[in-house]
Amino acid sequence: MFVRNCWYVAGWDHEVPAEGFLARTLLNEPVLLYRDSTGRAVALENRCCHRSAPLHLGRKEGDCVRCMYHGLKFDPSGACVEIPGQASVPPQARIKSYPVVEKNRLVWIWMGDPALAQSGDIVDFFWHDSPDWRMKPGYIHYQANYQLIVDNLLDFTHLAWVHPTTLGTQSAADLKPKIERDLAGNGTLTITRWYLDDEMPNLHKSVAAFEGKVDRWQVYQWSPPALLRMDAGSAPAGTGAAEGVRVPQALQFRHTSIQTPETERTSHYWFCQARNFALDDAAMTETIFQGVVVAFEEDRRMIEGQQQVLDLVPGRPMIPIAADAGLSQARWLTDRLARNEAQAVAK
Amino acid sequence: MFVRNCWYVAGWDHEVPAEGFLARTLLNEPVLLYRDSTGRAVALENRCCHRSAPLHLGRKEGDCVRCMYHGLKFDPSGACVEIPGQASVPPQARIKSYPVVEKNRLVWIWMGDPALAQSGDIVDFFWHDSPDWRMKPGYIHYQANYQLIVDNLLDFTHLAWVHPTTLGTQSAADLKPKIERDLAGNGTLTITRWYLDDEMPNLHKSVAAFEGKVDRWQVYQWSPPALLRMDAGSAPAGTGAAEGVRVPQALQFRHTSIQTPETERTSHYWFCQARNFALDDAAMTETIFQGVVVAFEEDRRMIEGQQQVLDLVPGRPMIPIAADAGLSQARWLTDRLARNEAQAVAK
Amino acid sequence: MFVRNCWYVAGWDHEVPAEGFLARTLLNEPVLLYRDSTGRAVALENRCCHRSAPLHLGRKEGDCVRCMYHGLKFDPSGACVEIPGQASVPPQARIKSYPVVEKNRLVWIWMGDPALAQSGDIVDFFWHDSPDWRMKPGYIHYQANYQLIVDNLLDFTHLAWVHPTTLGTQSAADLKPKIERDLAGNGTLTITRWYLDDEMPNLHKSVAAFEGKVDRWQVYQWSPPALLRMDAGSAPAGTGAAEGVRVPQALQFRHTSIQTPETERTSHYWFCQARNFALDDAAMTETIFQGVVVAFEEDRRMIEGQQQVLDLVPGRPMIPIAADAGLSQARWLTDRLARNEAQAVAK
Repeated sequence: MFVRNCWYVAGWDHEVPAEGFLARTLLNEPVLLYRDSTGRAVALENRCCHRSAPLHLGRKEGDCVRCMYHGLKFDPSGACVEIPGQASVPPQARIKSYPVVEKNRLVWIWMGDPALAQSGDIVDFFWHDSPDWRMKPGYIHYQANYQLIVDNLLDFTHLAWVHPTTLGTQSAADLKPKIERDLAGNGTLTITRWYLDDEMPNLHKSVAAFEGKVDRWQVYQWSPPALLRMDAGSAPAGTGAAEGVRVPQALQFRHTSIQTPETERTSHYWFCQARNFALDDAAMTETIFQGVVVAFEEDRRMIEGQQQVLDLVPGRPMIPIAADAGLSQARWLTDRLARNEAQAVAK
Repeated sequence: MFVRNCWYVAGWDHEVPAEGFLARTLLNEPVLLYRDSTGRAVALENRCCHRSAPLHLGRKEGDCVRCMYHGLKFDPSGACVEIPGQASVPPQARIKSYPVVEKNRLVWIWMGDPALAQSGDIVDFFWHDSPDWRMKPGYIHYQANYQLIVDNLLDFTHLAWVHPTTLGTQSAADLKPKIERDLAGNGTLTITRWYLDDEMPNLHKSVAAFEGKVDRWQVYQWSPPALLRMDAGSAPAGTGAAEGVRVPQALQFRHTSIQTPETERTSHYWFCQARNFALDDAAMTETIFQGVVVAFEEDRRMIEGQQQVLDLVPGRPMIPIAADAGLSQARWLTDRLARNEAQAVAK
Repeated sequence: MFVRNCWYVAGWDHEVPAEGFLARTLLNEPVLLYRDSTGRAVALENRCCHRSAPLHLGRKEGDCVRCMYHGLKFDPSGACVEIPGQASVPPQARIKSYPVVEKNRLVWIWMGDPALAQSGDIVDFFWHDSPDWRMKPGYIHYQANYQLIVDNLLDFTHLAWVHPTTLGTQSAADLKPKIERDLAGNGTLTITRWYLDDEMPNLHKSVAAFEGKVDRWQVYQWSPPALLRMDAGSAPAGTGAAEGVRVPQALQFRHTSIQTPETERTSHYWFCQARNFALDDAAMTETIFQGVVVAFEEDRRMIEGQQQVLDLVPGRPMIPIAADAGLSQARWLTDRLARNEAQAVAK
């Protein structure tokens, strides 16, 4: 029911501790995350192959994990390398090992066929760890299916209604964005909005090193199943921002919103809001972070409410509206992935 | 599974606020209750037809409700009258609107085919809003199917056992009531008990404006699926109470017990106990109310216990006893409604 | 799904009060336990045959139980002996009565065909009530299927891992025990370990009335579905302990671990650790009890963790290891009982 052959996020890098474990359910599977002796992140099935004991109650031994129920020891490949009290280990004594890549301060995990995992396919979130950018990483747990969150991220109509005092503006709701679809790889939606020769927003004014009219932009790039990158900012008007030129004084923000299904009805959500200015202003970092948290709580209340209604009266038709363009394309791209995956299995 | 083509209670009138919303699940459906600009109660599906967002997180705009997710606006008929960002509204963009009638301080709702709703069919509870009567309205939420509550209300045997120190008397348990069935409309059961030339109960003595023997009565009128009206009191003996004469000094009580299914396993319960004397004695109003609450909590403990047993061992046979006459007839009348409704749908 | 034709424990004798009731769910059935006027324990279905009201909300009347909903009265055989308001009681008005035997301070209950209940089949736990032994009875409620607890009790490998600082020793994990199977009756597994001419453990040294080398033993006797008796101790070396001789100064312990399914996912667990020395040392009794509780909490954390993993990913294969000998045989014996029971029903 979930797309499996793709890179999901399992956590921020700091969530996987140097010692001990992070236990997380991802796509209905119990996953154990830890670091080997070199600090490399490892993801194993959080279930001993012997009697289903959870391995996060076990202990790390060098690169391996020892189940503390009967002492079976597993290496990072998932192979059982020791069974106390017996000389040999049968080859079927192994647990799933998930391909893991750390990139841009995120721990990426491949929940599908390991043979298909290509680390080069991982989307770039360079603003997480570039010295030219600053952000504070966030996490929210959701009592809702992850697709309801994706729906929310890909529509702009809701900004004016759900976030009237935080993110929303009427102009944002009224302006029709340009939506482009790229079918290469897993597919990407790009949703672009430009406000040329416009007033600088108050937030930007308070930090800008320049004055006067600006060319403003919001460019969303979304990839299934649930990766959103946003590029937003203001540049002095006429300096070529819309053609890709970013003069040094341009104020730039990058936003990250990533979901991974926990179960059918619960989700993990990682986010951050990065900027390329005032990097050492810790108070600004915190202010921006808290602003996002407040707005995201506004979303969460609505989206968890949706889930509750869907649980009570499932299967009712949903009437599409014009503002659904983004979310419809996103659902289409996700369904395409799922369909391709099902066909590959059927072959 | 529930009878739908009948009037249910959705709440006391004061539960539906002048501003804002009352969100209630009725018969497994999410219902939104509010008042239009003239104060008239409106009941809509509490689910936006766009993406199933709950409308109680929205806002009232004049007579209409605006979903605060994407701004769709619905009028009291359930029609979507505005979709932000698009000029026209497709005709299928609408939500259920439930016929609503306010009568006797209750908000009545029709959960079935709106074409069949006849406000004239609503049972009379005049003691709720007559100047000659005084009551305090009550509400209980139940963790049990509503029919278990109906069962309880229609048997008198339980009074002596469940309420030995509150409502019960051994004479009440022993006296066989007269049970009459009227099949007109949804059907009505009338259960009548008279104690002629009897001692006045202590409660009555303390408030009566007369002395001596009385003719006492308890007349229950119950209509499916779950409407109970009780007429009880004491009149000076021989003044014709049993023939319908109520002399001015007669002490009269009217009791209301109404249930509406929330889900298969939970119920709403509205009640009151009205009297036609000492109308301005607020302390008496409160004392009577609290007495009912105490007795109803005795019932609730038993009935929710029943539900727990039924959940653990469903489907076991139930052995009828003589005292079941009332509840058996009530179940028969409810089944008759359900059967008629199923046949009408099949045509 | 549970073996039914066998004796289960319903509680310690003191859990069934002299007055009032103990309500327990056993094998998914609601059971009412109480004592008749002579103090004898009685077990009835905790469900009135009339309308499924729970009888523990009722009251005891002599040897009988009265349902406090409508007053039906049941005798210890489960027969309804009184229905208020009617002269005769129909023969089908009865509830299940379960055979009950009190032995060794335990209340034993037969959940299957009463005709097959033979009190002589009840396993002996003489150390519970013998004047030569001392113990403190314990109870734990488990959020796990009872067989996961049995698995735990019948393997010794886990001692070193789950209980490294309490029960476990590496030698215990390494020594292969002798496992014997006796198919008489419900079957019995006997798991024996002897350490001849060995050092006395520190615990034993602190209480022994003798010095020097010892012959130590641990003998588990387990019977399906979930009865464990353990005989453990130290005797002066060469005094014939291994041949069955127990000289008076031998330090002996007896351990009891008994489970009864509550539901598929929850269990009752009764235990004690008895000794034949220092009988009047109440502090030692408490110290031993608390030591067991600490170790059992270590088990509970792991076993409830197993249940959670099994709930999340049911049906995954389990890879057997050499240390499973005990638990495999136990599961085989339990399955044999279940199979025999199914065949007897099919005839």
